[in-house]
Amino acid sequence: MFIPGKYLLFLGDVRDRLDAKTASGLIDWAPDRCLGQWRLPACGIDLGLPDLDFAEARAQGAKTLVIGVTPFGGAIAEDWIAPIAAALHAGLNVASGMHTRLNNVPAIAEAAARSGASLFDVRVPSAPYAVASGGKRSGKRMLMVGTDCAVGKKYSALAIAREMNARGMKASFRATGQTGILITGSGIPIDAIVSDFVAGAAESLSPDNAPDHWDVIEGQGSLFHPAYAGVSLALLHGSQPDALILCHEAGRTHIDGYPDFPIPDLEECIETNLRLARRTNPDVRCAGISINGRALPADERDEYLRALHERFGIPCFDPVATGAAGLVDHLENGGSGDVMADRQIVGVTQRTN
Amino acid sequence: MFIPGKYLLFLGDVRDRLDAKTASGLIDWAPDRCLGQWRLPACGIDLGLPDLDFAEARAQGAKTLVIGVTPFGGAIAEDWIAPIAAALHAGLNVASGMHTRLNNVPAIAEAAARSGASLFDVRVPSAPYAVASGGKRSGKRMLMVGTDCAVGKKYSALAIAREMNARGMKASFRATGQTGILITGSGIPIDAIVSDFVAGAAESLSPDNAPDHWDVIEGQGSLFHPAYAGVSLALLHGSQPDALILCHEAGRTHIDGYPDFPIPDLEECIETNLRLARRTNPDVRCAGISINGRALPADERDEYLRALHERFGIPCFDPVATGAAGLVDHLENGGSGDVMADRQIVGVTQRTN
Repeated sequence: MFIPGKYLLFLGDVRDRLDAKTASGLIDWAPDRCLGQWRLPACGIDLGLPDLDFAEARAQGAKTLVIGVTPFGGAIAEDWIAPIAAALHAGLNVASGMHTRLNNVPAIAEAAARSGASLFDVRVPSAPYAVASGGKRSGKRMLMVGTDCAVGKKYSALAIAREMNARGMKASFRATGQTGILITGSGIPIDAIVSDFVAGAAESLSPDNAPDHWDVIEGQGSLFHPAYAGVSLALLHGSQPDALILCHEAGRTHIDGYPDFPIPDLEECIETNLRLARRTNPDVRCAGISINGRALPADERDEYLRALHERFGIPCFDPVATGAAGLVDHLENGGSGDVMADRQIVGVTQRTN
Repeated sequence: MFIPGKYLLFLGDVRDRLDAKTASGLIDWAPDRCLGQWRLPACGIDLGLPDLDFAEARAQGAKTLVIGVTPFGGAIAEDWIAPIAAALHAGLNVASGMHTRLNNVPAIAEAAARSGASLFDVRVPSAPYAVASGGKRSGKRMLMVGTDCAVGKKYSALAIAREMNARGMKASFRATGQTGILITGSGIPIDAIVSDFVAGAAESLSPDNAPDHWDVIEGQGSLFHPAYAGVSLALLHGSQPDALILCHEAGRTHIDGYPDFPIPDLEECIETNLRLARRTNPDVRCAGISINGRALPADERDEYLRALHERFGIPCFDPVATGAAGLVDHLENGGSGDVMADRQIVGVTQRTN
């Protein structure tokens, strides 16, 4: 699936920035592809891009209207339909990560047919996948595994791949969810695959590659999530990771929305992931811990990362605040899990001592 | 989904009895619903039912032609289409567990539309399922977990539910695959559900029930299978079992078709299943071990079961050869996992000492 850019980001009528995580992800990770935003009068957020109407966007080089919001339930709202149809009539393609397929909304299907523009449903698998073979593939793989959903797995993988690429290392970010797919223009919507084929889809996401190439794979869900653990395990098995990065949000104590499900100790999270991952790659190790520290002031976040590093002896970083340089240093230097100099391992924003 | 009986079993042109496992399952577990068999000239097997043509079957009370074979790939073969259409014209419904949907074969869809008969695709989920809630449900649940696929999980669950029902206990067999669904007329084809919803589907399969009611749930796959472990984990979490039964085929050392994947020690199989199952039911225990002993002579099988019981101290039985009476005795007597008198626990066919 190749989605033509540049993009006009559709924000609809959402009131909360958290409901615009696809648009935010695109602005953070593919800013040069984001030309403007389009909002309904009731929209309560502003992502800081120019407000463009469809004709203006088209004139400035936009090719695709991207639905940048992910309201609960994943449905296309009634009052989005007319503007989406108008965008199609103006000659824009439309890309969506909603569960509702664009083509299943008659007014949208009709407008696309008339304008000749394309509809991209990134949450709909574009190919049938084979049952997993379990066969070993060449190249190296790193998988993000979470203590919960929405703890920063995608940002971690993007930060690591970007850091690797900036150093001239061979590395590819591999998207497993709608926002990641829109950011990179390719990937597999793992959570939309029929269960028998998820591990097989994960195998096909990171095919044979050069021995020194890293696939940096976005994770999904968590082995500790009562609804999504099966998805996480299939992705873990099919990815056959050499390295795991445990992703966690500082301060989160329970699975979001599941108050009866505490998040286990990070030791147990790592141990359970490694134990199960060894089934398809006996040499897997935990290479680092990625912390979403947005809830902490900078000094507390640094202290949190330092304490975590002392406890585990592996690189600990915040993909947004500190970046993944410490982790990639460690990998370039052999990365066996030995405790190295603090500066190299702990991704600390600022150090005064 | 209610599939009207009695059934005429379609055996097509298969050459190997193992490819007729749906028909065999129906004959073993729902013999009073199986009226006859229908075979193409090239068919190489005979399941011992009368060969009936469609009009004869109809006249004797058959309501549905059931595709009783499951060839690799799950597709409807070219030369099945004409006879299936003829069955519809003769007034029979058609039920299928193939991946190919009956309605997607034009000649079949057309014949059904003309005859007014119904098409049942038991491998197609009949309802959308919610994301799992993780909420505790009333009643008791027992889940079959396998060391591999095709080790006897369905037969184990059917044997246990039948034994419970014969004693007047409240118990329901819960089907999770096509053959189980055809045997009972209800269930959920777990392996055909989109991955995000598998645990939720498993929750809905065994809803709130009387405190002394047992849901006896057919398992799918194995936590140790490189392709299907995710399905197994989602089913384990969503079922919230109070009791697990580990199902294993005597003599099987590797995952079938995956020679690089040895089956772990049974201790490890039990421990891994319990460890992950505790996430949604901290009180889960392993209540027994079910052995498919078809490869063993009767005396070796008995010895195998006895040795296994000495090793684990829980009921060990063969659902076909010994039945599940020993397990159900144990449950009725408290079933804490204590080692009880041999006779009660080990389901031995014949004892001479």
